[in-house]
Amino acid sequence: MRFEHLLDRFDTDAEGNALHQFASDLFPICRSITGNGVRQTLKIIAKRIPLEIREVPTGTEVFDWTVPREWNCEAATLRGPDGEIVADFADHNLQLMSYSVPVHQKMSLDELKPHLHSLPDHPDWIPYRTSYYRDDWGFCLPHSVLESLPDGEYDVQIDSALQVGSLTYGECVLAGDTSREILISCHVCHPSMANDNLSGVAVTTRLAELMESVPRHYTYRFLFIPGTIGSITWLAQNEDCAKRIDHGLVVTCVGDDDHPTYKRSRQGTTMIDRAVEFVLSQRNLPFVMENFSPYGYDERQYCSPGFDLPVGLLTRSPWGRFPEYHSSADDLTFIKPFALADSLRLILDVFDILENDGSYVNLNPMCEPQLGKRGLYDMMGGKQNIKDLRMALLWVLNYSDGGHSLLEIAHRARLPFPAIRAACDKLVEAGLLKAQPPE
Amino acid sequence: MRFEHLLDRFDTDAEGNALHQFASDLFPICRSITGNGVRQTLKIIAKRIPLEIREVPTGTEVFDWTVPREWNCEAATLRGPDGEIVADFADHNLQLMSYSVPVHQKMSLDELKPHLHSLPDHPDWIPYRTSYYRDDWGFCLPHSVLESLPDGEYDVQIDSALQVGSLTYGECVLAGDTSREILISCHVCHPSMANDNLSGVAVTTRLAELMESVPRHYTYRFLFIPGTIGSITWLAQNEDCAKRIDHGLVVTCVGDDDHPTYKRSRQGTTMIDRAVEFVLSQRNLPFVMENFSPYGYDERQYCSPGFDLPVGLLTRSPWGRFPEYHSSADDLTFIKPFALADSLRLILDVFDILENDGSYVNLNPMCEPQLGKRGLYDMMGGKQNIKDLRMALLWVLNYSDGGHSLLEIAHRARLPFPAIRAACDKLVEAGLLKAQPPE
Amino acid sequence: MRFEHLLDRFDTDAEGNALHQFASDLFPICRSITGNGVRQTLKIIAKRIPLEIREVPTGTEVFDWTVPREWNCEAATLRGPDGEIVADFADHNLQLMSYSVPVHQKMSLDELKPHLHSLPDHPDWIPYRTSYYRDDWGFCLPHSVLESLPDGEYDVQIDSALQVGSLTYGECVLAGDTSREILISCHVCHPSMANDNLSGVAVTTRLAELMESVPRHYTYRFLFIPGTIGSITWLAQNEDCAKRIDHGLVVTCVGDDDHPTYKRSRQGTTMIDRAVEFVLSQRNLPFVMENFSPYGYDERQYCSPGFDLPVGLLTRSPWGRFPEYHSSADDLTFIKPFALADSLRLILDVFDILENDGSYVNLNPMCEPQLGKRGLYDMMGGKQNIKDLRMALLWVLNYSDGGHSLLEIAHRARLPFPAIRAACDKLVEAGLLKAQPPE
Repeated sequence: MRFEHLLDRFDTDAEGNALHQFASDLFPICRSITGNGVRQTLKIIAKRIPLEIREVPTGTEVFDWTVPREWNCEAATLRGPDGEIVADFADHNLQLMSYSVPVHQKMSLDELKPHLHSLPDHPDWIPYRTSYYRDDWGFCLPHSVLESLPDGEYDVQIDSALQVGSLTYGECVLAGDTSREILISCHVCHPSMANDNLSGVAVTTRLAELMESVPRHYTYRFLFIPGTIGSITWLAQNEDCAKRIDHGLVVTCVGDDDHPTYKRSRQGTTMIDRAVEFVLSQRNLPFVMENFSPYGYDERQYCSPGFDLPVGLLTRSPWGRFPEYHSSADDLTFIKPFALADSLRLILDVFDILENDGSYVNLNPMCEPQLGKRGLYDMMGGKQNIKDLRMALLWVLNYSDGGHSLLEIAHRARLPFPAIRAACDKLVEAGLLKAQPPE
Repeated sequence: MRFEHLLDRFDTDAEGNALHQFASDLFPICRSITGNGVRQTLKIIAKRIPLEIREVPTGTEVFDWTVPREWNCEAATLRGPDGEIVADFADHNLQLMSYSVPVHQKMSLDELKPHLHSLPDHPDWIPYRTSYYRDDWGFCLPHSVLESLPDGEYDVQIDSALQVGSLTYGECVLAGDTSREILISCHVCHPSMANDNLSGVAVTTRLAELMESVPRHYTYRFLFIPGTIGSITWLAQNEDCAKRIDHGLVVTCVGDDDHPTYKRSRQGTTMIDRAVEFVLSQRNLPFVMENFSPYGYDERQYCSPGFDLPVGLLTRSPWGRFPEYHSSADDLTFIKPFALADSLRLILDVFDILENDGSYVNLNPMCEPQLGKRGLYDMMGGKQNIKDLRMALLWVLNYSDGGHSLLEIAHRARLPFPAIRAACDKLVEAGLLKAQPPE
Repeated sequence: MRFEHLLDRFDTDAEGNALHQFASDLFPICRSITGNGVRQTLKIIAKRIPLEIREVPTGTEVFDWTVPREWNCEAATLRGPDGEIVADFADHNLQLMSYSVPVHQKMSLDELKPHLHSLPDHPDWIPYRTSYYRDDWGFCLPHSVLESLPDGEYDVQIDSALQVGSLTYGECVLAGDTSREILISCHVCHPSMANDNLSGVAVTTRLAELMESVPRHYTYRFLFIPGTIGSITWLAQNEDCAKRIDHGLVVTCVGDDDHPTYKRSRQGTTMIDRAVEFVLSQRNLPFVMENFSPYGYDERQYCSPGFDLPVGLLTRSPWGRFPEYHSSADDLTFIKPFALADSLRLILDVFDILENDGSYVNLNPMCEPQLGKRGLYDMMGGKQNIKDLRMALLWVLNYSDGGHSLLEIAHRARLPFPAIRAACDKLVEAGLLKAQPPE
């Protein structure tokens, strides 16, 4: 199957449902930046795509950082004065602060309170809290529960372990005609939250699956990593590989029903930035383009000044700007099949440009060639997109002077990239156009 | 008479009426891309300006194209079952499809129908149809007539001729101080339609007449050609001449009462583009600037990538975007004397810039010179435009550092070009300014 | 005291009141482009700052101009037919046209009228008129008075003197670490008008006083000069010094309660232009940026093409665009303490950027450094601006690649310059950043 067929045969409903189902399968697992939850997640992904699972030992120095101890938790409960359960890790893994140290202790409500977290503005939601780099522990509760706690003695039981182990991540590489790479990176370090990490994991897995099924110009690298420490670790151990990345996307929060938001790479006008903006601008649907800022997700590391990679961030509702962010309300009802499918499709449309863009030379540049005598005026007779294609022929002919790429021509013509690509193919076939040799 | 006097003495009413009258004189003639209608049109134009009439034989190869057979038509009628006239070329030359092959045949309504054309949305108008490069024939009817045709036998009589002959065009060259050229091109290939071709023909003829009456820096070339094949033919046979074109305009559809629309040259920021935009922006009237696109009129050929000439398109209602386009409703009532005169004036204002722009050097660049002691503060005492001119003196002095042309200064100052030009003349006279020698 | 403390300790109310009081002290003096009024004004300023008072003799040639005769006036009255006072220089110094020649003469109302000036649209205001470079005289009256003048014989007594003398200006230079200069220029040539000259004189005097109290990177030059002829004289006699000016502002009309207006230098994108625009854009208050135009105040001379200095113009209501301009209504009630203080503060904020901007290099450019282990995440715990500062750390780290100055980073980050400067200081202290050595 050719790459273009992925677009022609794209079934939004089927893709959306399958993406949502995959997110549902992964939802119950308790992930963190290290530990068995990540391993279990990666094993499920590895059933669908050729995934290498890497282990980087605790204590490994990665630039200014050190791979931390591995964290796992068997059980954790907080009981009230009468022995009743106030919070239980087994009920919802958000109830325990991630990276909580082991605790087996009784204490008064006053002693306990600094370790309790809630969201006063959303009294029924459980917040998500972590303490990766400072020894601490805590329970996260609905504010309504926290407010009703009686005085008395509380029993804290946290059967967690912080031990020498490793940081785990997954890497799927699909070789292409060239060793130059397209990077897709998502994080797999959040426990039971759907938009903020599983939407990105599901879409990235499906992208790898689809791209494995077609010939590729580029080599594609899909990373499933813990946020921040994962990208830092990968970059520290793959500096040469990073130099081969021509285009990249961090993908997360792509399942809610808000419009897409794209944050440009640090360089701001790289090919990936232009390709995403063009695809979004062609859809006649709302979207937002933002300039790079040094906070957010792993693009912070890919775009640190020492790397400055052409990597943007694709989300729908962006980082920290939706109320459900980092809470139990970011659940499977918060992500929608159509939004997941739309995000997947959008990235495939971007891949179409990355795979097929190029510069061509009009072999008949003095006045227009006579298209009629070559049958090019009628070529698309039965299709409704005939006008687009007729215009596309004229645009490609006029601007194929070696100085304008197909994407640039599509941008000027305000025509869909596939129309420009199809016109280019027809003109090459008719002997009116040839690829511009690389300089 | 100096060029500037053309502007000072411009009489909008008289010019508008004369332009409309000239269009009316040419209206009845049946023009096509070849044939006697074009010859007759050019002979009438030649009474007013020094016009060379060129004949290019059928079969001449011009780049990817071939000059077609010459088409002429004596008579053409379509009669209904009772012998009544349904369509008659003698009544309105739009009733016959241009380049219809000879036909003398009876046929049923069903056989006839594929050869009948109408405009369902405008049931009283006759459409304009052509078939230059494919042997065909047809009649064009009001939709109300077409809908009421009874079954029965129809009689088609088309006394046309498609023969070896020539393509005819007219060329008027007015030599200037330099051999560098300004090109004005209009098409003369449409039968009885007023805005889409006669408005351009009338304005171009008058421009040539006016420019013949004054000294010129540039050499002016006015082309009256059939659309597409005419410009391709001229370019194919005048490649060296094309290299001398510094500025150019295709002029058509300049008679309707909509605001001016200017389509930039392919390069987009050439002098002609900047001059037209400046003149339009100074008028405090609506106008539209569009970027180049590879469809429209003969600018498609002048701006093909092998030529890429600095040629823009001036229209009022643009190509294909007014309902009367290519129909019998594009008649003499559709074009207005004031609009024709306004278009003529606009081009003369552009010529003012092309003829007089230049860079100057302030000979007293350290602080301002004292204008009062040179009488320059009072120079315009009695005129209402005194404030413009006083400001123009300061602007020209400050920005005449060799790096800013008069047009650039006018643009910064938001002052009319004639005010800047007049200030420049005064300052040169006062010894405060001199022309920047060419590099 | 460090420069930054001028900002931290800025007391808007106290500054505003002191500025208004100083303008009030100077208000009664009759200034002109030469004469004792300017000397008296400069002597009062010299009590507060180290001011050199310069005298340039009448007849000195300064570029295209000549220093004029010195003008002083003892008394001037206009009496009506019954001997009643119509206008008296002693009542309001605007009643006499500045540079009026001596006159002792009786004349009819008809002979007198060409010498009387009023403002018909503001019948109670006295206009401000001058005749520096043409021998003339005149009285300025409320229009209501002028209209009620009876016929009869009038007595004109003008005890003025136009004599060989000198042009007087004041110059305060505060040496800094470098000989490169910041120029602040205000005019001191207007008689009793508050916004159009005293607001600028008061703010400039206070700026000099404050800058004298702190260490300075730049050398600061404050000029108190007569308009036009003063700047031309200074430039003509200080061409070498002008070459040392890196940044400059003309300051006037900074006391009315309209929003600030900044007119860019001729070059348009110099550091002073960018610094002022950034400071204004950070305030969430209305302001206007205008491009350079060759009329206005002394920036006309500083930005003449032979000098083309990076000097902008700061005003509130701009030149000629407020009704009170050049009339008796531009009095001490027209200028407001808060507006004077706001203008002073704005310039100090600009000085903060000019003094402290620079480019730095991130010493840990591969991925982000771990801020937590260096205590940089908690450094601002108690302050409300913690979020600004945390973000500022990330912005400064990411963009300190030698190619982005602190101002450019502040602009991208949309953070106040002091936050960026403070983050920079902290990061240098933590060994994560070092100053980019000059090229």
